[in-house]
Amino acid sequence: MKRRLRMGMVGGGRGAFIGSVHRMAAALDGTIELACGAFSSEPERSRASGADLLLPANRVYGDYREMIEREAALPADEKMDFVAIVTPNDQHHGPAKLALEAGFPVMCDKPLCLNMEEAKDLEATVQKTGLLFGLTHNYTGYPMVKEARARVRAGELGKIRRVVAEYPQGWLATRLESTGQKQANWRTDPKRAGASCCVGDIGTHAANLTEYVTGLPIEEVSAELSTFVVGRPLDDDASVMLRLADGARGVLWASQIAIDEENGLNLRVYGEKGSLEWHQEEPNTLLLKWPDKSRELVRTGANYARLSPEALAATWFPAGHPEGYLEGFANLYRSFAAGLLEGGAPAIDCPTVGDGVRGMAFIDATVSSSNDNAKWTKIRA
Amino acid sequence: MKRRLRMGMVGGGRGAFIGSVHRMAAALDGTIELACGAFSSEPERSRASGADLLLPANRVYGDYREMIEREAALPADEKMDFVAIVTPNDQHHGPAKLALEAGFPVMCDKPLCLNMEEAKDLEATVQKTGLLFGLTHNYTGYPMVKEARARVRAGELGKIRRVVAEYPQGWLATRLESTGQKQANWRTDPKRAGASCCVGDIGTHAANLTEYVTGLPIEEVSAELSTFVVGRPLDDDASVMLRLADGARGVLWASQIAIDEENGLNLRVYGEKGSLEWHQEEPNTLLLKWPDKSRELVRTGANYARLSPEALAATWFPAGHPEGYLEGFANLYRSFAAGLLEGGAPAIDCPTVGDGVRGMAFIDATVSSSNDNAKWTKIRA
Amino acid sequence: MKRRLRMGMVGGGRGAFIGSVHRMAAALDGTIELACGAFSSEPERSRASGADLLLPANRVYGDYREMIEREAALPADEKMDFVAIVTPNDQHHGPAKLALEAGFPVMCDKPLCLNMEEAKDLEATVQKTGLLFGLTHNYTGYPMVKEARARVRAGELGKIRRVVAEYPQGWLATRLESTGQKQANWRTDPKRAGASCCVGDIGTHAANLTEYVTGLPIEEVSAELSTFVVGRPLDDDASVMLRLADGARGVLWASQIAIDEENGLNLRVYGEKGSLEWHQEEPNTLLLKWPDKSRELVRTGANYARLSPEALAATWFPAGHPEGYLEGFANLYRSFAAGLLEGGAPAIDCPTVGDGVRGMAFIDATVSSSNDNAKWTKIRA
Amino acid sequence: MKRRLRMGMVGGGRGAFIGSVHRMAAALDGTIELACGAFSSEPERSRASGADLLLPANRVYGDYREMIEREAALPADEKMDFVAIVTPNDQHHGPAKLALEAGFPVMCDKPLCLNMEEAKDLEATVQKTGLLFGLTHNYTGYPMVKEARARVRAGELGKIRRVVAEYPQGWLATRLESTGQKQANWRTDPKRAGASCCVGDIGTHAANLTEYVTGLPIEEVSAELSTFVVGRPLDDDASVMLRLADGARGVLWASQIAIDEENGLNLRVYGEKGSLEWHQEEPNTLLLKWPDKSRELVRTGANYARLSPEALAATWFPAGHPEGYLEGFANLYRSFAAGLLEGGAPAIDCPTVGDGVRGMAFIDATVSSSNDNAKWTKIRA
Repeated sequence: MKRRLRMGMVGGGRGAFIGSVHRMAAALDGTIELACGAFSSEPERSRASGADLLLPANRVYGDYREMIEREAALPADEKMDFVAIVTPNDQHHGPAKLALEAGFPVMCDKPLCLNMEEAKDLEATVQKTGLLFGLTHNYTGYPMVKEARARVRAGELGKIRRVVAEYPQGWLATRLESTGQKQANWRTDPKRAGASCCVGDIGTHAANLTEYVTGLPIEEVSAELSTFVVGRPLDDDASVMLRLADGARGVLWASQIAIDEENGLNLRVYGEKGSLEWHQEEPNTLLLKWPDKSRELVRTGANYARLSPEALAATWFPAGHPEGYLEGFANLYRSFAAGLLEGGAPAIDCPTVGDGVRGMAFIDATVSSSNDNAKWTKIRA
Repeated sequence: MKRRLRMGMVGGGRGAFIGSVHRMAAALDGTIELACGAFSSEPERSRASGADLLLPANRVYGDYREMIEREAALPADEKMDFVAIVTPNDQHHGPAKLALEAGFPVMCDKPLCLNMEEAKDLEATVQKTGLLFGLTHNYTGYPMVKEARARVRAGELGKIRRVVAEYPQGWLATRLESTGQKQANWRTDPKRAGASCCVGDIGTHAANLTEYVTGLPIEEVSAELSTFVVGRPLDDDASVMLRLADGARGVLWASQIAIDEENGLNLRVYGEKGSLEWHQEEPNTLLLKWPDKSRELVRTGANYARLSPEALAATWFPAGHPEGYLEGFANLYRSFAAGLLEGGAPAIDCPTVGDGVRGMAFIDATVSSSNDNAKWTKIRA
Repeated sequence: MKRRLRMGMVGGGRGAFIGSVHRMAAALDGTIELACGAFSSEPERSRASGADLLLPANRVYGDYREMIEREAALPADEKMDFVAIVTPNDQHHGPAKLALEAGFPVMCDKPLCLNMEEAKDLEATVQKTGLLFGLTHNYTGYPMVKEARARVRAGELGKIRRVVAEYPQGWLATRLESTGQKQANWRTDPKRAGASCCVGDIGTHAANLTEYVTGLPIEEVSAELSTFVVGRPLDDDASVMLRLADGARGVLWASQIAIDEENGLNLRVYGEKGSLEWHQEEPNTLLLKWPDKSRELVRTGANYARLSPEALAATWFPAGHPEGYLEGFANLYRSFAAGLLEGGAPAIDCPTVGDGVRGMAFIDATVSSSNDNAKWTKIRA
Repeated sequence: MKRRLRMGMVGGGRGAFIGSVHRMAAALDGTIELACGAFSSEPERSRASGADLLLPANRVYGDYREMIEREAALPADEKMDFVAIVTPNDQHHGPAKLALEAGFPVMCDKPLCLNMEEAKDLEATVQKTGLLFGLTHNYTGYPMVKEARARVRAGELGKIRRVVAEYPQGWLATRLESTGQKQANWRTDPKRAGASCCVGDIGTHAANLTEYVTGLPIEEVSAELSTFVVGRPLDDDASVMLRLADGARGVLWASQIAIDEENGLNLRVYGEKGSLEWHQEEPNTLLLKWPDKSRELVRTGANYARLSPEALAATWFPAGHPEGYLEGFANLYRSFAAGLLEGGAPAIDCPTVGDGVRGMAFIDATVSSSNDNAKWTKIRA
């Protein structure tokens, strides 16, 4: 029987950013509803946030342990169906592991956790429990990213030779963390963010997107991380040279000090037969280039004879009705929800714990290479 | 006490397009929930659609009369708070009037109705009942449209001299209506769409946007409507010259046969001191031009010292996280909901029945001018 | 035997703009050299200008009559081969007619002359003498304009339904002519510019481009001309609805008061099978749109299997080496020069006196329609 | 007394590309004329090319030695004023040195020569003779590159933190050299091109542009060069991480196998106070970004209160009349010619032999770093 999936949320209380994005994305097509939450590590803040969200008081919990324990005890037709984790990096592993062990599938914000040890432990837990685990590398949710991947898979670009992945931002160009800004605070704090700020927060998105579209694992990196803002303990800028499988080469750079760059994730892929280019800030256009014919602009929702089924399935509106960040994010939840409803061990088009482990390995290798005079360093996932 | 507003919907059943947009837009920030509906003029289709939407069967009605009558009889803490009307044009006046007379505020899709007589009657009903009436000229909901309007109001462009409004589409370039396509069917049928297809469906959006941004009423038009697709009884293309208040002049054109134009609404405004330009398909950028300094690109969500409060209030995400059609549409519902919760006769930033009457007058004048050798014809709203 | 063609110039002395463009364009590929000139109606200014240009003093003349008479008397291997006329509109007919009657072919700046009477007289003189006459509607010289025309001719867009031609500028947004600025002075003076400023100076370019690309004559216009700058005797802004041959419809607008629009000529053409779009300020890209496949970006100089011979012949550099205003202008001179060297009555890809007559008719019809309540008015060329 | 400078050319005969660009660029404003040449190492080809160019036979020479010797013997008012060298890299040092030693200033195509030994020798010869030596890193000739440099110099961007320089091309994506294509032939031949194909031919342009705009020398590189086309002895793709003076960091990549990239040189610079971005393929726009106000688009030729004198001096036409590759190239010749006419040891805004030496050092360091596991390697110029 058709029903709404019930989501329990860890984090995302008043003052948070990504929590409300998860809630809107999860709810967008009416398949998921917010059922309960532990919205803050401060119980009072959690309760106030729950009230804001119009949840009944008895489904708002003081911490994630309480939530998982009490929800697990509820009747099957009432208790939450899965847990969404939207806390800082150091608060991923704990609730994720506990939830899985209590039988709850997990949708987790990225990067997966604080370090490789935690990552491997989560991966093992997922394997042991056999439960669904999604990771919100949300930028793979855009229709034109799906189209790009489908084109590469179909061999239209031929063997891939070169990639360029960028993720420039400017919001940390000054020492914002010293003003008490919550988002800046934890991201620049090694105890809460892990070994890297810039690579961890946005570099991993660029790496994930690169691998998703090309289908080629990044195998080695040569990197230089920099900290431009004085007093900041972690990197706020990164240059990385890439060696991918099958001899492909590339560059990935990310920065948080690139003034007035907003959220400039983009990817260019060059193969033996053609090229492609995609920009997150204008997500509904995919540019294809060929050696002997006109450039092509492929558009979300267009009425073409040959848009890929993957792109069409990820599309919400007819062409020219701009889809954006939210719809792309929501596509991960749609896929995750479909997987849940399907049961078994479904194949979902949503990054998983394995992508999370790769992300942690990417962070470790870039930090290590940068510390070692840009030496080529293997990704060990 | 904080609560969710309950929406009852007329139309929007299986196979419809705009109904699901209204539902997602209304629900986006968690303030409104779908409580009941009469989703089709066919009771069976209505019931099936309600089940799709996970509504309880007793809140799914066979037609709008039944819905309004039965909801009116429910207890105050249960019955719907307002009615959303998402049917073809000929099915606006009936449910809107009945809802208002039963005490329900109304959010109605555009254009307002079938002809000026209906429009005037609705306007009188709104005035008589004193209830809120919103009209989804949704393109005014974008943050950068708000910014454009604020800049003009603040006098930054000086006295307005010239406007250019465009709304090209290509989806009716062939006789799609003969294939049974539902959206094409009713829009090209004078009995269901009214006196115009192209001007009614999209030209009115362009006219509304022009007046919203400039603050200047269109006073006279000289028009030529064309029907390029053989056998189509209404226009599918329109050229209109405009005379606006205060001596401003302009051009507005709209077309449904402009192949591979998707949903290309755009506006340029030229004043004595500066110019602006905005495109719906890339809605998060507003271009400003000046006689003696660099062009400016104003961006949704940017961290500028001086974005207008109106733009900021309409913004959902930080800069670079593309907002689109849905968020703009949702801003109308946010404003409408805030008005409902506020009570009294609130000022809302959502088009109203008055804009709807102006739209009908615009349709009538362009049709009349076109029939009269492009003679300058007054808009009589 | 291969040789350089010798050009005599009328106008283009110190302080002029378009004269130096003609000189650079004519000389660009080494086929034409400046041999003599009457650069100003003031003999002193003419001589000083000639010295600036490193011409021998005996080839610099006090006025065009002197130039034509004395050059006609020189030996064949010394005298000028043709005359370039780069004066204000009221100084076209005199030198052009005299040159033709003395046996010199003419390259003339646009619009052709001051009024239809002069235009018809020039046309008759060209026919009588059988000499080449080129008119510098230079924007048809761009490779991607050639490509656009070739695509339409080849039927790729199908029957043309709608066109939109624009030519916005902002340089006359204030009363520049009252500051003594030479270019503004004569263009806003009916005695020197003719019946129109805006339509004459730039509207005719847009009309010429429209007819060149579509191959369809504009048959009727409904127009409104405006003068926004107080005290200016001619129009500085124009809206025009178009009826073209074969049932095509369109809009053309031009303005000189559109602040910070630079030189924004652009054209969109919509046919039964596809659409195209071209912008003068980014001239090396032609956008093609189709009902059922990706948009195409065609690029100047690209190594495609199927660029038209006309576009290739007009291309100067490999793709990505931006060509601009000068190269496009030079293509007219290349074609004109090739025609001269070929002899007989060659077909050249350069606008001719006939295009000039059509331009005057377009001016007359728009002025007349605007004076007659936007009445549809026939173009009588 | 005002006169035209006489240019003698080495190389640039039939079938060459860059020679004709030099000729058009040199001649564009009428200050320089082609007076003589040794257009090919094959005397017959040289003579035929000279005839194509309408030169008298006695000024067309069989090789550069003959040209320099015979021109040196001509009277002062007849002999060439300088030599332009437009041959492959291995044919720069010989004619350049001979010309300088015979008293002729030199304009030389880039890169400077074949290797550092030659470069140092040329530098010493320039210093010894005290003659002008220009190097056609032509992309610094664009008005908006001048503007970018002026903005950085004025401190508007603050201390520079990060740069990204790119130069993608696609024309060598297949083994074009095996088809006999002349341009591909010598560039992929170590004996004629030197130690690198991709870095030498285009990477040095990107490096030169970076240093020109930022004013910061590149101090160290970590690089990976690749050869994707089988059988090609030199690199056709390069990734380079940069350390510039004053702690700035960056990425530079160049490729000749990036399919359908045309000539995509571009630069982004991020400082403590602002950012800038410029693209060679749309050269007339400079994008400026700020932390707290709207993005700015600065346009070539615009009528702003505050365009830099350097940009204005490099501008040929009013805004909106697109300037391109040719005008930018011509600006180098304008500056070089002004220097020649001025005499003494003038400061010219044209790259010099010192930039050429830096270019050779950049090539050497990237090749060395790539061979040494991407080790950070100092630029030793």
